[in-house]
Amino acid sequence: MSAKLSKDTPDIEKLLHVNPRLNPYANVVATSDTKKNKLHWKRNSSTKCGSCVSLEKNFDDIKHTTLSERAALKEAARCLKCADAPCQKSCPTQIDIKKFISSISNKNYYGAAQAILSDNPLGLTCGMVCPTSDLCVGGCNLYASEEGPINIGGLQQFATEVFKSMRIPQICVVDPKDYKYDKIVLIGCGPASLSCATLLARLGYKNITVYERENFHGGLSTSEIPQYRLPIDAVNFEVDLAKDIGVKFEYGRELSIDDLTVEKLKNEGYKAVFIGIGLPNPKTINIFKDLTKENGFYTSKSFLPAVAKGSKPGMCACKATLPELHGNVIVLGAGDTAFDCATSALRCGAKKVFVVFRRGFTNIRAVPEEMQLAVEERCEFIPFQSPKEVLLKGNQIIGMEFYRNEEIEPGKWEEQKDQVMKLKASFIISAFGSGLSEGKVRDAMRPLKFNRYGLPEVNTKTMETSEAGVFCGGDLAGVSETTVEATNDGKVAAWSIHKYLQEGKGLTVPLTPQLPKFYSPIDQVDISVEMCGMKFENPFGLASAPPATTSAMIRRSFEAGWSFAVTKTFSLDKDLVTNVSPRIVKGSTSRHHYGPDQGSFLNIELISEKTAEYWCRSVTELKEDFPEKIVIASIMCSFNKDDWLELSKMAENAGSDALELNLSCPHGMGESGMGLACGQKPELVENITRWVKGNVKIPVFIKLTPNITDIVSIARAAHEGGADGVSAINTVSGLMSLKGDGTPWPAVGTSKYTTYGGVSGNAIRPMGLRAVSAIANALPGLAIMGIGGIDSADVALQFIHAGASVVQVGSAVQNQDFTVVEDYITGLKTLLYLNSIDELKDWDGQSPPTMVHQKGKRTFTLKDSQAKSLPYFGPYQSKREEEIAQQKLKADILKPDHDLHSRPPFEPSSKIPEVKDEIGKALKAIGPYKRLDNSKQVVALINDDMCINCGKCYMACNDSGYQAITFDALTHVPHVTDDCTGCTLCLSVCPIIDCISMVERKTPHVIKRGVVSLHGGLGVVQ
Amino acid sequence: MSAKLSKDTPDIEKLLHVNPRLNPYANVVATSDTKKNKLHWKRNSSTKCGSCVSLEKNFDDIKHTTLSERAALKEAARCLKCADAPCQKSCPTQIDIKKFISSISNKNYYGAAQAILSDNPLGLTCGMVCPTSDLCVGGCNLYASEEGPINIGGLQQFATEVFKSMRIPQICVVDPKDYKYDKIVLIGCGPASLSCATLLARLGYKNITVYERENFHGGLSTSEIPQYRLPIDAVNFEVDLAKDIGVKFEYGRELSIDDLTVEKLKNEGYKAVFIGIGLPNPKTINIFKDLTKENGFYTSKSFLPAVAKGSKPGMCACKATLPELHGNVIVLGAGDTAFDCATSALRCGAKKVFVVFRRGFTNIRAVPEEMQLAVEERCEFIPFQSPKEVLLKGNQIIGMEFYRNEEIEPGKWEEQKDQVMKLKASFIISAFGSGLSEGKVRDAMRPLKFNRYGLPEVNTKTMETSEAGVFCGGDLAGVSETTVEATNDGKVAAWSIHKYLQEGKGLTVPLTPQLPKFYSPIDQVDISVEMCGMKFENPFGLASAPPATTSAMIRRSFEAGWSFAVTKTFSLDKDLVTNVSPRIVKGSTSRHHYGPDQGSFLNIELISEKTAEYWCRSVTELKEDFPEKIVIASIMCSFNKDDWLELSKMAENAGSDALELNLSCPHGMGESGMGLACGQKPELVENITRWVKGNVKIPVFIKLTPNITDIVSIARAAHEGGADGVSAINTVSGLMSLKGDGTPWPAVGTSKYTTYGGVSGNAIRPMGLRAVSAIANALPGLAIMGIGGIDSADVALQFIHAGASVVQVGSAVQNQDFTVVEDYITGLKTLLYLNSIDELKDWDGQSPPTMVHQKGKRTFTLKDSQAKSLPYFGPYQSKREEEIAQQKLKADILKPDHDLHSRPPFEPSSKIPEVKDEIGKALKAIGPYKRLDNSKQVVALINDDMCINCGKCYMACNDSGYQAITFDALTHVPHVTDDCTGCTLCLSVCPIIDCISMVERKTPHVIKRGVVSLHGGLGVVQ
Repeated sequence: MSAKLSKDTPDIEKLLHVNPRLNPYANVVATSDTKKNKLHWKRNSSTKCGSCVSLEKNFDDIKHTTLSERAALKEAARCLKCADAPCQKSCPTQIDIKKFISSISNKNYYGAAQAILSDNPLGLTCGMVCPTSDLCVGGCNLYASEEGPINIGGLQQFATEVFKSMRIPQICVVDPKDYKYDKIVLIGCGPASLSCATLLARLGYKNITVYERENFHGGLSTSEIPQYRLPIDAVNFEVDLAKDIGVKFEYGRELSIDDLTVEKLKNEGYKAVFIGIGLPNPKTINIFKDLTKENGFYTSKSFLPAVAKGSKPGMCACKATLPELHGNVIVLGAGDTAFDCATSALRCGAKKVFVVFRRGFTNIRAVPEEMQLAVEERCEFIPFQSPKEVLLKGNQIIGMEFYRNEEIEPGKWEEQKDQVMKLKASFIISAFGSGLSEGKVRDAMRPLKFNRYGLPEVNTKTMETSEAGVFCGGDLAGVSETTVEATNDGKVAAWSIHKYLQEGKGLTVPLTPQLPKFYSPIDQVDISVEMCGMKFENPFGLASAPPATTSAMIRRSFEAGWSFAVTKTFSLDKDLVTNVSPRIVKGSTSRHHYGPDQGSFLNIELISEKTAEYWCRSVTELKEDFPEKIVIASIMCSFNKDDWLELSKMAENAGSDALELNLSCPHGMGESGMGLACGQKPELVENITRWVKGNVKIPVFIKLTPNITDIVSIARAAHEGGADGVSAINTVSGLMSLKGDGTPWPAVGTSKYTTYGGVSGNAIRPMGLRAVSAIANALPGLAIMGIGGIDSADVALQFIHAGASVVQVGSAVQNQDFTVVEDYITGLKTLLYLNSIDELKDWDGQSPPTMVHQKGKRTFTLKDSQAKSLPYFGPYQSKREEEIAQQKLKADILKPDHDLHSRPPFEPSSKIPEVKDEIGKALKAIGPYKRLDNSKQVVALINDDMCINCGKCYMACNDSGYQAITFDALTHVPHVTDDCTGCTLCLSVCPIIDCISMVERKTPHVIKRGVVSLHGGLGVVQ
Repeated sequence: MSAKLSKDTPDIEKLLHVNPRLNPYANVVATSDTKKNKLHWKRNSSTKCGSCVSLEKNFDDIKHTTLSERAALKEAARCLKCADAPCQKSCPTQIDIKKFISSISNKNYYGAAQAILSDNPLGLTCGMVCPTSDLCVGGCNLYASEEGPINIGGLQQFATEVFKSMRIPQICVVDPKDYKYDKIVLIGCGPASLSCATLLARLGYKNITVYERENFHGGLSTSEIPQYRLPIDAVNFEVDLAKDIGVKFEYGRELSIDDLTVEKLKNEGYKAVFIGIGLPNPKTINIFKDLTKENGFYTSKSFLPAVAKGSKPGMCACKATLPELHGNVIVLGAGDTAFDCATSALRCGAKKVFVVFRRGFTNIRAVPEEMQLAVEERCEFIPFQSPKEVLLKGNQIIGMEFYRNEEIEPGKWEEQKDQVMKLKASFIISAFGSGLSEGKVRDAMRPLKFNRYGLPEVNTKTMETSEAGVFCGGDLAGVSETTVEATNDGKVAAWSIHKYLQEGKGLTVPLTPQLPKFYSPIDQVDISVEMCGMKFENPFGLASAPPATTSAMIRRSFEAGWSFAVTKTFSLDKDLVTNVSPRIVKGSTSRHHYGPDQGSFLNIELISEKTAEYWCRSVTELKEDFPEKIVIASIMCSFNKDDWLELSKMAENAGSDALELNLSCPHGMGESGMGLACGQKPELVENITRWVKGNVKIPVFIKLTPNITDIVSIARAAHEGGADGVSAINTVSGLMSLKGDGTPWPAVGTSKYTTYGGVSGNAIRPMGLRAVSAIANALPGLAIMGIGGIDSADVALQFIHAGASVVQVGSAVQNQDFTVVEDYITGLKTLLYLNSIDELKDWDGQSPPTMVHQKGKRTFTLKDSQAKSLPYFGPYQSKREEEIAQQKLKADILKPDHDLHSRPPFEPSSKIPEVKDEIGKALKAIGPYKRLDNSKQVVALINDDMCINCGKCYMACNDSGYQAITFDALTHVPHVTDDCTGCTLCLSVCPIIDCISMVERKTPHVIKRGVVSLHGGLGVVQ
């Protein structure tokens, strides 16, 4: 019997071996077998693993918050962008968090970075190191959902890192005539000073100097926070941003009676002094007196800088090496610094780290996520222990003794002298916090008053000290406990300094601080566009839709930055409508998604319930108050010339900039002979257009329905009738969903009737892009307002590239609010700006090329002895870890990575395009099928190192394609075979961006035609 | 000056106070202020809180994994449904996890529960208590993504709980003539026996008795696992399922030489004995000898059952009370039981719990998620302590002494006698694990052989003991350490027992176990349907699309359960095509979503590249091998009668059941005068139909394009031409997306050209539902095959309600694989079955009415003294917690909740509908707009207790609606005002299902028309 045509060949059968199939019975595997098998597939660390692979010299990013682009988009999409966002209220620097997350979710990474850096000049550092669970994240409303709060820190890091790789400088937007040359000095180049200096520079101060005791900048960020949490290039970037706007830095200068003192600086003509030196001295206890690193003793203040110098490329000129530890290491304390010491110790050779602290777990100062890293790296924790003495053998530490510390009544602790614990260790690192104990430093601050904690007296609302013109922030000021709080102290101080200096000159400053936001050359890009003689500030306007329900709403939209609005469609009084309810329902086109970010809406809302009189008076008012804004009246009548003449005249007389004739409303109005009842017939469209054009002088647009066989024919009719342009597309007629019992939604009244409604939003975007490009290709010169799922600058530019001059937005506002336009504006500016930079030619919009990564962290190719890829689970992962541990020991960790540099900035190599240059840019690529070249085929290529082994590519290829991907039953690594026809479905379902790419086919493209009967002969063709 | 029409009135201005608006400057708030403010907004517990609100008598669910429906859908959508899923391989019972998660994401909760219970008869219990991070979750490929692995346990719990509330019994599907009456006894009614008994009953055994020593069932699940992790009604449910299929239970009977012994049972005629008594005795140490609860001493084996009896409603007839603890409590051990003891102690009045254990944190036996609960409830942990002695004062425990335990070399531990820790406490609970020490029990197992651990020798592959006919599983068998492993032991043993019994009768059983899956009356629902004389097993078929690329794929789809397939469209050889690549791209209609579950695809793929000969021979083969399946040939020619006659005849002769004439392919083919080039012209459609109908005897369907003004006109033309039916809809013509530089995707060849392609998937569903219902309403009697985003039984039923008889699927297979049809089948059966049960009339499909909850956990209304709602954050949350603590102290926690009962089962009150009864059910509700009743208005109602305070409703109402929702600046509680017009946008963007509902308007509906100029007068109308 010959093989059947409809049966897979044996090789394909074999390939299909691990493809899902039905199993009519329950699965039976003995418990003892699964116990073994699961170890092969294990992705998380086994709780049973007693020892870990060495972390020595491994300073790779260990942050859980780090995100790849895919993950950032996913996380940003989860954010609800709450009305009165508690995250922002809980951020010391008050970053507009929902705004930056909105921008990320719209792929406007510059917009996000701008929002972050506007309120926090150390936005990248803080994104990496903030104890967010006690700050922004602590207030996240998504704590009230099972999926938990947003990874705000990770998103902040992501956006600022993308911006960093754009290499775009900060600029000061103060008019040069308003520059201020008062001499300002900041002492200590940590977060507080950097922030203060940056904001003063933004205010136009041109004579700002930061003095730093060390030969590196960043303060604690550089010297204490480990490289694996905060890489040095992040700090360099923020300093570069300050330098961009003129802040000067001097190193090797310290606050000390031997060098800089407050009095000397004042005498040198500094009008304002900011002291942000942190708390330079470790708190310590008597038993450690005289112990040094030679004995095996460190404080966090001696240990962490030594680790930093040995692990941060370029931090100091010397080629420092890491402290060399071994055996047990005791870390004392339970703050974040203690945990940094613990995890750093492992990287310096410690075999086992014991973190010992005085109180219980309940009293740990660090936030859980800080402790977690030490837990994962298998540090041990011993609570309730109070240091008694250090045990030495000769010079060398051999351990420590502790008294048990007991809470004898709530809040009252007592050392139990009869209970002593002995812990063997070769090294002790005390991390009891820091203070200010050096007399020379204190004295250098004279005549500042000090409080009972030995710190300068500071007005915590203004950061002023007891001495006029002297300000203080950061740890030294006694309030801030974190980098971000120090940063905010600097920000608050900046305004106080400005106020002090200006008032000193007899000038006044506003009561509410007006600190400038972050700006770059991107913000200077002109995105205005002219269409039919109208000048639009930007191409973004409100569509005639629910966001334009009232003119007060349009007013608010103008205040938010929209350049134009089309009124909700109005009619003559005789055609006044009354709506039914419910009438606007969520889409089902993105499956079971609840909440904002709806992929579509369906509405059965009619035109405006308000009178033409209301709208005309409103138009007049709006044009009076916003002469620069464009107000377009949307009007509708039935096929009656007099009506059209009357209404269009009224609208023109009111001062409308243009008219949009709504010939496309898909529901309700059609039954009254209006809307789409007119818009589906070319002759009616032509007539109506001609009537109106003959009657008014302002531009006339026809709003087109997509519910038509050939939208171009309608656009052509409008064109023939004299229309200046068209708006495409109105909503698509549809039925959104039915409940389980067949009841429709929306269902109106007691009989629960429904009617077909208009679908809007992302779901109809492909139809919108098609309509716009088809009209633009067919009718060059006809202006187009693009509509249909426009929810970002990214999509707006697609519509512009497809031929639209401006775009109208509806559903995206329904999903959020009027302020979204700010993101669209910066987003579009960025897209235009980036297009002019040669170095970024391989970016797609604001998305950088995907680095080879796992979880957003760079990875690299490791193969086993048979040159097979090693995936990231079970035994393969162990092999990877061992291999990496070996490589790290040999690596030069101080070798700088030039990819990470953020300066010199990239400069535009050509004129930055204007919107008009972009209109229709894609049109030449869109044409008939026959023009496509079927001799140039592509095939899929999978990057094993990015692969997460899900096998989606394999399944798609098997059940919807060509059985051209193998899937290893043990490693779960897929591989593309020569049978690939380049269909691209695998890429389309792969969850990892750019893990699969389509590359040119190098081998002959053989088509499997099954059987050919040409020339009468029969044969099976491969 | 009069107020402006286009300005909000002062009351609306006030309402808008917290609505987002632009801020041109950076925000400045002093660090000290934010430190205070953030406490108001705090959603997570503060690390600084020293003491917690009392948990006394609070046995509410504390599982992090519990999910509401919204969260379950969200989580299920995240699952990648991996090809060769490692989760399943890591599950001791080998649950087909991706299958049940797929079903959840398709809202087929019965299908999910069936998959779970098929492999694990204790699926609900295991969903609640499995240490998943060491099992299924440990293998999840999403560990390789930033968002982390799937909450598999929570999803399992969700699906089985929904099924539990359906109250549908388990059935045995064995033919009564194959019933087996061998006497089988199982000793101990814990997970192992329950599982074994259930699976034996499924095999048709009718004489199965479970003996239990206690007066309650469930074993450790009932007696030890606390109510807040595993409520007793979950256990009752699983026992009920076993009873459904005839398992008998007897209580108060124990394995002991005084009662049941292996020998006696055998003598009594029991053919097989299964011993699943667990490890009944606590392991203890000498220093606790003679200590009892009177002294303040418990073992976990005495403490947890006492807690259970005092907190689990209905567990025992007596009204037991909780153990009364106070002061400090020491819990010894670091397994999951220790943590259960710790958290239980807090509920019995302990003020502070110390968990003390011998080794370090690195060596903790429990998985992190088990320990986490104790961490959150502020237990303290003291590692490295070995018990020395108990300190007593009189009779009462006053504390304990410990030696420090040190790991002197890897794996070698030593007590340090010179280091003693004293811990004050009033109670000690030892949780050192359990064993088998009772001689009477051991002796009752004679003649079983025992191993060196004092446990029966067991073959771990089969669970056989040394004695023929005696089997053993669970803790006693020495391998399993968890409930799920015990359950699996029982499952493995069930097959071994079956094999033993059958082979004992000289019969053979298959080498590979064939244990029946879980079945219920739902599975007996007939979902076959007849259309045009063809009988379809179920309404699900493959569309003529990539999943039907080859006939071997169609074969595999039939094997997977699809009832029909439409071949990929083929042509005469002269029209053979060659595809371009890339050609199938992911959608952008659900924003930036990567991976499977794409909301749409766009393809520019042509018809089949294979010959008509190939397809015709394939059809013949398929019909030979699958006579019950329906094979429909999809064919295409240009407008040429001879071609159509030739090709249709070929297809008929090959044995096709019907023909589908593809007159609708939107790309490529049209340019050759085929596809949509024919399908957009009624006269062409009518002619082609007539030609083919006159030529063949089999039914003819026309596949319709939606790219048309009036799809009904085409359907009518087909009808006129004699078509038996239509397929609606083909893909929608579109342009999916452009890259940042204007390059289209897909872009073909070096010139990167593209053409409009066909959009498929969920995005086009509203158009599909519209087309189907419009045709069905207009042309009753014309058969319809529904197409367009059908991805579940839920959606399929919508198409059927809209008038389709069967449905075709394409994109959903592209997103997953052929096996999805299994879910569609059970899903549709369930929907039909549930429609016949009166008690479930308020369900929507398989979704139960939403209970008032937060995070899936029932909540209740609490108001402050001004009757204002108390939200769940900051000071309000504290107030809530205090109030709840008070209420719990007074509550009767043993009061049974009848809502939670799963029996008696609900019975169908009417005939279960067939598919034919459902066809077109929704049609009467779909009609013209004018029929909608605008006198019956609705308004929004917000449930404050479900609200998560995001304010999306407020923002949507402000910027896209009617400014009819207030939002309290402090509590963030929204409130709907009388201005609500019922538009429903607030509900549409609310992230919480049913938090907002639309209710009948009770007040007069006043329309704000702005200004009326009727009768010549002008006036502002509210």
